[in-house]
Amino acid sequence: MTAPKLTHLDETGAAHMVDVGAKADTERVAVAEGSVRMRSETLALIKSGNAAKGDVIGTARIAGIMAAKKTHDLIPLCHPLLLSKISIDIEADDTLPGLHVVATVKLTGKTGVEMEALTAVSVACLTIYDMAKAADKAMVIQDIRLLRKTGGKSGAWSAAHEG
Amino acid sequence: MTAPKLTHLDETGAAHMVDVGAKADTERVAVAEGSVRMRSETLALIKSGNAAKGDVIGTARIAGIMAAKKTHDLIPLCHPLLLSKISIDIEADDTLPGLHVVATVKLTGKTGVEMEALTAVSVACLTIYDMAKAADKAMVIQDIRLLRKTGGKSGAWSAAHEG
Amino acid sequence: MTAPKLTHLDETGAAHMVDVGAKADTERVAVAEGSVRMRSETLALIKSGNAAKGDVIGTARIAGIMAAKKTHDLIPLCHPLLLSKISIDIEADDTLPGLHVVATVKLTGKTGVEMEALTAVSVACLTIYDMAKAADKAMVIQDIRLLRKTGGKSGAWSAAHEG
Amino acid sequence: MTAPKLTHLDETGAAHMVDVGAKADTERVAVAEGSVRMRSETLALIKSGNAAKGDVIGTARIAGIMAAKKTHDLIPLCHPLLLSKISIDIEADDTLPGLHVVATVKLTGKTGVEMEALTAVSVACLTIYDMAKAADKAMVIQDIRLLRKTGGKSGAWSAAHEG
Amino acid sequence: MTAPKLTHLDETGAAHMVDVGAKADTERVAVAEGSVRMRSETLALIKSGNAAKGDVIGTARIAGIMAAKKTHDLIPLCHPLLLSKISIDIEADDTLPGLHVVATVKLTGKTGVEMEALTAVSVACLTIYDMAKAADKAMVIQDIRLLRKTGGKSGAWSAAHEG
Amino acid sequence: MTAPKLTHLDETGAAHMVDVGAKADTERVAVAEGSVRMRSETLALIKSGNAAKGDVIGTARIAGIMAAKKTHDLIPLCHPLLLSKISIDIEADDTLPGLHVVATVKLTGKTGVEMEALTAVSVACLTIYDMAKAADKAMVIQDIRLLRKTGGKSGAWSAAHEG
Repeated sequence: MTAPKLTHLDETGAAHMVDVGAKADTERVAVAEGSVRMRSETLALIKSGNAAKGDVIGTARIAGIMAAKKTHDLIPLCHPLLLSKISIDIEADDTLPGLHVVATVKLTGKTGVEMEALTAVSVACLTIYDMAKAADKAMVIQDIRLLRKTGGKSGAWSAAHEG
Repeated sequence: MTAPKLTHLDETGAAHMVDVGAKADTERVAVAEGSVRMRSETLALIKSGNAAKGDVIGTARIAGIMAAKKTHDLIPLCHPLLLSKISIDIEADDTLPGLHVVATVKLTGKTGVEMEALTAVSVACLTIYDMAKAADKAMVIQDIRLLRKTGGKSGAWSAAHEG
Repeated sequence: MTAPKLTHLDETGAAHMVDVGAKADTERVAVAEGSVRMRSETLALIKSGNAAKGDVIGTARIAGIMAAKKTHDLIPLCHPLLLSKISIDIEADDTLPGLHVVATVKLTGKTGVEMEALTAVSVACLTIYDMAKAADKAMVIQDIRLLRKTGGKSGAWSAAHEG
Repeated sequence: MTAPKLTHLDETGAAHMVDVGAKADTERVAVAEGSVRMRSETLALIKSGNAAKGDVIGTARIAGIMAAKKTHDLIPLCHPLLLSKISIDIEADDTLPGLHVVATVKLTGKTGVEMEALTAVSVACLTIYDMAKAADKAMVIQDIRLLRKTGGKSGAWSAAHEG
Repeated sequence: MTAPKLTHLDETGAAHMVDVGAKADTERVAVAEGSVRMRSETLALIKSGNAAKGDVIGTARIAGIMAAKKTHDLIPLCHPLLLSKISIDIEADDTLPGLHVVATVKLTGKTGVEMEALTAVSVACLTIYDMAKAADKAMVIQDIRLLRKTGGKSGAWSAAHEG
Repeated sequence: MTAPKLTHLDETGAAHMVDVGAKADTERVAVAEGSVRMRSETLALIKSGNAAKGDVIGTARIAGIMAAKKTHDLIPLCHPLLLSKISIDIEADDTLPGLHVVATVKLTGKTGVEMEALTAVSVACLTIYDMAKAADKAMVIQDIRLLRKTGGKSGAWSAAHEG
């Protein structure tokens, strides 16, 4: 575990973008997930639309990829990064019922890409909500979290190894 | 309840930005919520930092407000809108434990502002995660949903009245 | 025909964003088209991919819609506008061979939306090129032009009525 | 020739941003061209304005340079890149009649800059259209294509060597 | 004079984007100014370059116009607005020595456009600095201020009438 | 001193983004400053608001940090850069009276970060103006300048050593 401090606040408590200049360029990967829970009728509607044209899931995937590239423009203290890979998987889960989103982001650079993966998941979920909200306003976006990361000084981390 | 269809897909299933030109300009309000669940030590850290300088919560609030204005740039089929008010409340909740975020967005225009409120909540939560992640990578962003909306043809809607 | 002058230059020749404040809010529609010409093998590849998942055409359609909303951020002297509808049709044309793109943009406002329709077509074509360029770098984006416009003081215009 | 496949679609046909992390940083250059064809009176108008102040051509050049830097924000699956040089040449061609645009983009990095050069040309052409459209709505943006590229694993490519 | 309070802070001191929904749509104009002071040799260099091609002043004018349209994306609590006119005048002033920038912004809407005019001036000045900094790093951007505004509930205001 | 030429203009006087591809990656730091001069009552208002919640200064600091990351999107000929650190200090100065802003930006890369530091200062000052303008429209943004830079071929530069 990393040390319990808030690195984005300086010694006076003021927000700043921390200095990563001295960090090494290493390959870093982050995987995040999240879900949109909905009525089963809504899920059926999306799946039938998808069978024909793929547009809800396809549009959410594109929105998530584009949002990952905007992360530093959305999250005030994130560094701009040269992401080398972004992929997003979206699958229907009848037990939720709803859609489950997983984003994988890769970079060779000085900082981790956790925020990029979490942002991709969040915006993919928001896009799903937008495209289905005419049918169901009660959908809930839930359980957005980091699944695992590798690379960087703090090394590998996995949600599975946390209590 | 609105009709069960996916309005962003045309008759062939292709995605488009729906025509709102004939809709009336009415006052529309949307309120959305969400939370970041974290270890109680992490919450204590944010609260102590906040007591001194307010930066985690203050920064997340600004990030959420700015993100609401970018909604149409993030969500592919959202219309650009002239938002007339955005406010974000962030409160510590020791029972989660974590932070609870509520966003209120207002507009006099032709479309609802649900997506703007949900986007504001999502990006405020992501910013909280970013600023506290050095201390706690296992935080979870959860239960982002629309609380209520007023205005527009479909009229008032409240999560409380849904089953 | 409109008068032969360059309205974006003032009397000294300097560029400015012209004053539209006194113009009436009317419904305005613009339709533009363009094509990507490619080898027939490349078109077959896109069509087979599309039969399965629709991603080249679906992605280009989303990119074009999002670009229409960014027009005022790309074209220096375009006004920001509240577009009320954007739709993009992309069809394979074996006689080109290639893909033919048509964008329709609608607004109730003070200025025409020709540039938004032309920008949507251009970025949809660029996206098609990007997604197929590993197979064919010699593709050509061609014949991007306004098909017709309605609304506004200058009234209806159609490419078909020009010589 | 590169292999005939669509690299932006994965094995299931879903769009993703391909992994370039393992590629070498090499110097890469791309040169693209395009034209705006117009009535000769319109070209004369631009040239006379240009003689005095240079604003149509100067504005289009700036718009193209700025657009090249936005390429990854416009084209969904393009990587963010640290462009090291962008230049745009715009010349009047009385035989079109119209303006001919050439963009040169350079980078030391992991991916080619074809899309950046093509985007710069497209937006410069759109800006020319915008600034002259009060005089001539029938202008056509034509023949946007890659002229040549160097660098990267696939090596040099030139439109002249294609059939 | 308007009342001495900070309207962007609510009763608890938290930042928000104030509600302008109930304000009337009136025509609003704001004019702002600023200067870049430099060595007289630097000014001569810009003027000679400008005499030939107009590029420093022309580029700064375009940058200022584009920045005015981004104001709500730069200033956290500014509302998005449909600017109806932006013009920027830049003149050499040998007595500074340097360049003097004046921006005029117009809108029919619910909020004033002071920030848009001030942002246009600031970014035009920054662009002048950028383009001349290879010759002179000691340039100073100075005296950016609102000259006058008209329209809105608070009515007309002019810097000349302030002490 | 660097040579007296305008590097952003080519031999014909046309604006371009200069080639930095052959420059070495070195650590580069730039520090810039600026002020907002206001009535002492306005400063007292900000300080009292700030004592309670920190929002004017905290919001301006966030706005400045985010703006530094947008510099290449605002200043036409600036290169996109991977900033490794941004920090902004804002202090009340009763002798102005007003607020004094200092921005420090760091990068390991091929070009200096003067423009990023100056942009951060400018947007922080604009945000202060925005948040206090309901109380005082006569505030002036003044004396924005580079304090010092290190790194790069032209080496260290300090305003203090200029005449």
